Amino acid sequence: MTKNKRKIINDPIYGFVTIPDDLIYDLINHKYFQRLRRIKQLGLTNLVYPGALHTRFHHAIGAMHLMQEALLTLKQKGIAISQEEEQAALIAILLHDIGHGPFSHALEHSIVKGITHETISSLLMERLNKEFKGKLSLAIKIFNDKHKKKFLHQLVSSQLDMDRLDYLKRDSFFTGVSEGVISSDRIIKMLNVVNNNLVVEAKGIYSIEKFLIARRLMYWQVYLHKTVLSAETLLVNILRRAKELSTEGKELFATPLFKLFLQNDFKKIDFDKNIDILDCFAQLDDTDISASVKTWVNNDDKILSTLCLDLIDRKLFRVEIQNAPFAVAYKNKLMEKVMRTYKLNRKEAAYFFVSDSVNNSAYLAGKFNINILMNDGSLTDVAEASDQLNLKNLSQTVTKYFLCYPKEINL
Amino acid sequence: MTKNKRKIINDPIYGFVTIPDDLIYDLINHKYFQRLRRIKQLGLTNLVYPGALHTRFHHAIGAMHLMQEALLTLKQKGIAISQEEEQAALIAILLHDIGHGPFSHALEHSIVKGITHETISSLLMERLNKEFKGKLSLAIKIFNDKHKKKFLHQLVSSQLDMDRLDYLKRDSFFTGVSEGVISSDRIIKMLNVVNNNLVVEAKGIYSIEKFLIARRLMYWQVYLHKTVLSAETLLVNILRRAKELSTEGKELFATPLFKLFLQNDFKKIDFDKNIDILDCFAQLDDTDISASVKTWVNNDDKILSTLCLDLIDRKLFRVEIQNAPFAVAYKNKLMEKVMRTYKLNRKEAAYFFVSDSVNNSAYLAGKFNINILMNDGSLTDVAEASDQLNLKNLSQTVTKYFLCYPKEINL
Amino acid sequence: MTKNKRKIINDPIYGFVTIPDDLIYDLINHKYFQRLRRIKQLGLTNLVYPGALHTRFHHAIGAMHLMQEALLTLKQKGIAISQEEEQAALIAILLHDIGHGPFSHALEHSIVKGITHETISSLLMERLNKEFKGKLSLAIKIFNDKHKKKFLHQLVSSQLDMDRLDYLKRDSFFTGVSEGVISSDRIIKMLNVVNNNLVVEAKGIYSIEKFLIARRLMYWQVYLHKTVLSAETLLVNILRRAKELSTEGKELFATPLFKLFLQNDFKKIDFDKNIDILDCFAQLDDTDISASVKTWVNNDDKILSTLCLDLIDRKLFRVEIQNAPFAVAYKNKLMEKVMRTYKLNRKEAAYFFVSDSVNNSAYLAGKFNINILMNDGSLTDVAEASDQLNLKNLSQTVTKYFLCYPKEINL
Amino acid sequence: MTKNKRKIINDPIYGFVTIPDDLIYDLINHKYFQRLRRIKQLGLTNLVYPGALHTRFHHAIGAMHLMQEALLTLKQKGIAISQEEEQAALIAILLHDIGHGPFSHALEHSIVKGITHETISSLLMERLNKEFKGKLSLAIKIFNDKHKKKFLHQLVSSQLDMDRLDYLKRDSFFTGVSEGVISSDRIIKMLNVVNNNLVVEAKGIYSIEKFLIARRLMYWQVYLHKTVLSAETLLVNILRRAKELSTEGKELFATPLFKLFLQNDFKKIDFDKNIDILDCFAQLDDTDISASVKTWVNNDDKILSTLCLDLIDRKLFRVEIQNAPFAVAYKNKLMEKVMRTYKLNRKEAAYFFVSDSVNNSAYLAGKFNINILMNDGSLTDVAEASDQLNLKNLSQTVTKYFLCYPKEINL
Repeated sequence: MTKNKRKIINDPIYGFVTIPDDLIYDLINHKYFQRLRRIKQLGLTNLVYPGALHTRFHHAIGAMHLMQEALLTLKQKGIAISQEEEQAALIAILLHDIGHGPFSHALEHSIVKGITHETISSLLMERLNKEFKGKLSLAIKIFNDKHKKKFLHQLVSSQLDMDRLDYLKRDSFFTGVSEGVISSDRIIKMLNVVNNNLVVEAKGIYSIEKFLIARRLMYWQVYLHKTVLSAETLLVNILRRAKELSTEGKELFATPLFKLFLQNDFKKIDFDKNIDILDCFAQLDDTDISASVKTWVNNDDKILSTLCLDLIDRKLFRVEIQNAPFAVAYKNKLMEKVMRTYKLNRKEAAYFFVSDSVNNSAYLAGKFNINILMNDGSLTDVAEASDQLNLKNLSQTVTKYFLCYPKEINL
Repeated sequence: MTKNKRKIINDPIYGFVTIPDDLIYDLINHKYFQRLRRIKQLGLTNLVYPGALHTRFHHAIGAMHLMQEALLTLKQKGIAISQEEEQAALIAILLHDIGHGPFSHALEHSIVKGITHETISSLLMERLNKEFKGKLSLAIKIFNDKHKKKFLHQLVSSQLDMDRLDYLKRDSFFTGVSEGVISSDRIIKMLNVVNNNLVVEAKGIYSIEKFLIARRLMYWQVYLHKTVLSAETLLVNILRRAKELSTEGKELFATPLFKLFLQNDFKKIDFDKNIDILDCFAQLDDTDISASVKTWVNNDDKILSTLCLDLIDRKLFRVEIQNAPFAVAYKNKLMEKVMRTYKLNRKEAAYFFVSDSVNNSAYLAGKFNINILMNDGSLTDVAEASDQLNLKNLSQTVTKYFLCYPKEINL
Repeated sequence: MTKNKRKIINDPIYGFVTIPDDLIYDLINHKYFQRLRRIKQLGLTNLVYPGALHTRFHHAIGAMHLMQEALLTLKQKGIAISQEEEQAALIAILLHDIGHGPFSHALEHSIVKGITHETISSLLMERLNKEFKGKLSLAIKIFNDKHKKKFLHQLVSSQLDMDRLDYLKRDSFFTGVSEGVISSDRIIKMLNVVNNNLVVEAKGIYSIEKFLIARRLMYWQVYLHKTVLSAETLLVNILRRAKELSTEGKELFATPLFKLFLQNDFKKIDFDKNIDILDCFAQLDDTDISASVKTWVNNDDKILSTLCLDLIDRKLFRVEIQNAPFAVAYKNKLMEKVMRTYKLNRKEAAYFFVSDSVNNSAYLAGKFNINILMNDGSLTDVAEASDQLNLKNLSQTVTKYFLCYPKEINL
Repeated sequence: MTKNKRKIINDPIYGFVTIPDDLIYDLINHKYFQRLRRIKQLGLTNLVYPGALHTRFHHAIGAMHLMQEALLTLKQKGIAISQEEEQAALIAILLHDIGHGPFSHALEHSIVKGITHETISSLLMERLNKEFKGKLSLAIKIFNDKHKKKFLHQLVSSQLDMDRLDYLKRDSFFTGVSEGVISSDRIIKMLNVVNNNLVVEAKGIYSIEKFLIARRLMYWQVYLHKTVLSAETLLVNILRRAKELSTEGKELFATPLFKLFLQNDFKKIDFDKNIDILDCFAQLDDTDISASVKTWVNNDDKILSTLCLDLIDRKLFRVEIQNAPFAVAYKNKLMEKVMRTYKLNRKEAAYFFVSDSVNNSAYLAGKFNINILMNDGSLTDVAEASDQLNLKNLSQTVTKYFLCYPKEINL
């Protein structure tokens, strides 16, 4: 029986991932977790990188695998980690993204405003803990940084956590952007613990620099790629329009689950009070959104159907992107051109002309620092320890401004 | 303008794929082809190998890439291939799977019986040829093996075509079954043409053997993996039940496109006569099926909802598999147990008990042979040329028999 | 101190290899083992595959790594393996090739006839055991198959040992012959023990087939590649000639170590009686041979200098290879042409005309069988268990016949 | 005949490298070039990274392969490159390192002082040009930056040349330091030419940053790894001692070729005047040095034999390394300890105590700049174009100071 549950899962990245025990096996097979099989890690990124179809399910499994390796390394270095702590840390990383909805970013900007995936994750972990009779209590403590061995939390959530190590590796792998590849093996081998905090041994410093640069590269080359921004902008506008129409009482085709959230404006308090809402949210996945958007191609609202057709047939908006804000006059001119071309009022035209910005910091000094354990036993922030690469520069936030509008609009 | 169309596409397998000209660029951007972005190459295989989410879109692009390499190799060896033929061969391989519907195998066994994807491919190519004013005529000729340079057709469709080379490589890559990896590079470098037929140079013989073994391994380890069989059996039964209910006049939730095919029994003649049917089929994709199946979890038909819940939450049927047919008595006993346990009549119980078989031949001697160009200039079938590996054995068809039924059923 | 010895070694194949304890650390740092850094695993193969420069040192470390993984897998499956046995198995695989001299095959056919590397390995292990005060006794017992847990010996030496798994993987990697790549991970995960014997679980059967085919492919594509045969034939002839000249009393340039073996005909008994001879042999490496051969390019013996120049400048002999023996008349004609062209007598001409054969069996049924653990608990030889691939054919020995002679010789 | 020369070479990194024409085939088969098979790219680095045995031969072939790809990309972008220029650029990169001797760095600091490998490269290219009747003239012009299309020279030698792209990739691959891996494919796809100068298109900027960081990482992690420094210091001292003894008239064992350079102090003028000296240098390779050093283990000069034994058995000196110079008092104390321990005078002790420094700049602004082609058509130095990574910092030279002395010396 027990033996049956010691499964291995194939992973093109790590070869095999071993499921270490029955509780974790049961969690992976729980419908909350199985749902993550139907939620892509990178939303619409596959419109640019066609291989980027990997799911949050696979990512969570992979992050758990790295956690196994990290804990093994630390134990080999003599760090005390009990069997309970080990299981709890594995569960914490496994469930860290359990609350993600489909196309999270887009959804949170349109359909379930004000409900973040972190909130949902907490609610779902509590539900699971109840269902599994308290066996997740320590995992939740670690997740919320309430356990005294802070390094366990830092392995789950910090600037050098197993989440990041896995997603950078996985996203590089499936997009084919080989420059984002990081050496998770080497970084993990360099981990250690000082005063209950995670540190990196001095000889690992070049690997950390490389990791920070790789992460920055992935931001601009993949996560904030201008065509990806364009596709996501389109989806946000589609969902906003659908919500607007639904609110006005118009009946739109949608899967029943999706319809529930289209037609209602649930707040955090509703999720707390009404367990069914949480349960419905925990059934929503990419297919609800995609199948509905696809069908709206034939909707009689011209704005909605046009936006949907653009997304489905991949006729994406042009994106202009630059380091400084765009001139107001320029934006006005474009907006007016959109209004004239499509004969729309300003409010309607806003569905076809978006001005927004994105930003990224490669490293946030001072917050969840990455500490380097120097050869003399002292600790130094990686931003100070690097001999040349002025990592302080990397901690500046870079902001880029962009405009999106149909390709046929030309000034 | 033209320059704009010379795009490159990221592929984690080949690095970059170059789109060679405007016509091909336009075909790739056509909605018929973009649809393939939403059709997974391996259907439900991701339930066993979670990375196997790659699409027919990516495969078709990859096969085109290999075709570019193969044509380059042949031209370097002095084989005459005109620019028109080159473009046509690229188009033929690009469009070879254009007619695939979502979960093809399951669908063809339940919803659109009697309409194969090959039929649809032909119809869609004709439509595209009309739309592109005859520019696809040579591609279609090559596809249908009507062009005198038969090797071009053989590169599109034979036992050693670019389709197989790409799908073996791609399926290995995304499943993580590294043993299926083939050396497409080496095989392509060994290709040559004799009397208008594709041949492999003698020193490539070990690569060919390896390719045949890898293909066989992929069949049993991936394509016909017993858990994949179980999932597909479940989907076939879901679709059969849905069709049955629809035929009986019961209204089921479905996307409008899917509903059309659920509620009607279109024949080949309908596709020919009514262009709208083909057009609707050419809009159907995985999300139509998945979103509908998901919703049926709450359907009031107990059979349908049970089957759907099993698939969505991945509570798959047990599979027994063996090389000989199962004893009738054993099958009867299982069937009766199912009937008793779920209080179903025989016809209903058939949704929960399936007896079927699968088969595979690693190599079909005599049909689209793989010919080896011996050092003395003669040609020999690879099954004869191999000095040791009795490839004749590989050409025997292996049949395996399997039973599927719920895990809680035990004799 | 102890901590210092827990080193990791970089391996492009496995990432990192961990040295598990101090005794093994000390063995790796022993001069007998360090010498393996200067002995290439594949001799002259780099003349065909320029990347094939990897050493017996790296291979032994890699095989030890796989042994660590195999033992971990078996222990996780509940097989009793004590800490002493673990260390001993690691040492046994680490030292399995310790007795290899430079260009083993060529040397054993010319300079140290009758002394195999197995003999030297045994002598060196005994020496090490004395030096390390008996700590290697169990390792030697395992190496010699005298330990009751026979599976430990089988992991060191059988048709599915860690030696083969590493060398196939490593040789594929460094030659770039990607088709030889095997999935050592998957094979190791499928290992189990029944009645103290190593077995492979049933679901691993396709991996084993693939492994046997890959091995066969590597034989013909790499190990017995005709240009490699040509280079090795040249080296054998160079060494034979040098030995002949030395025996005749001619003074040849050589490193002192190499000179000792050139000028004397040591037998096994000499190695046993005189410890210095073993010690000298244990200092011989590739550079002794290469530097001497290089210098002989300027030797005044025409035969020797010609052969050496051919090897150094890579003007290798032509090779004819076929499945049947060559006709005597044809061989005679070639021989006479060589004699005439270079004005040599028959004995001298034999340095420029070689007729020989090579053979290989992919699998030897009946000897160290690979046993498959069937699902019903029974054991079957892999040659019987495979459903299609007639592995019996693979157990036939394939012999190929070849001739080598200068490229300018044409009939 | 011609066909025979169109060979492909296996490369584990690129798969296959094609030799494009007969002239290049003949150059590769020339003894000057074949010698590079016996010169390791990374000298003694294999003592730290055991896989780093790859040769200058393989590197030169690989760099030629990247040149083929770069020229193809540029031609596809409409840059005019004649067939003659293409061949010449390939030859220039193929021969760019032809003058390297064995363990170049160590040799140039001890045996052939004042003769750089660049000097020898030029002399050898001229010799080859004479031998090939002027067919290398354009290649030499490009090599020396005398051809008007400066970008061809920049592809051979600049901060973004094919030399660097190949060696970073190759050194990462064979050492297993995966973090040094660069995406040569992507960088090459981004190359373009403006006003005869090589530029990188704007969207390639992150790849360039990554390349610079990877190069910096490889410097500190591999090329200037402290154990590598230690081994090279040892070799320099061995060679210095051997030269000193030879100069004093002591007869040392050495291969005849090596002896010539040990016993004479050739200057540039000697190489110019006496063609035999160049010819002898062009026969020297790693085996000459290694076999001699090995033999000196038994030399009766205690200093020489001790140093050689340390290198052969890998008992390397301890290395202390830091960012500031070491205090003179500390160095004196160590020196005196060495003198006392080994009973040596100051001059002799200098063979066992070395104080030196190494430095590296990731990017040299102002010299062979890497220019970015901005989207508006202007050019900007990459150090300016990067939005965040202050590349100016990367252009500072980092100096590290180190001390080497036997591990048994402790203050």
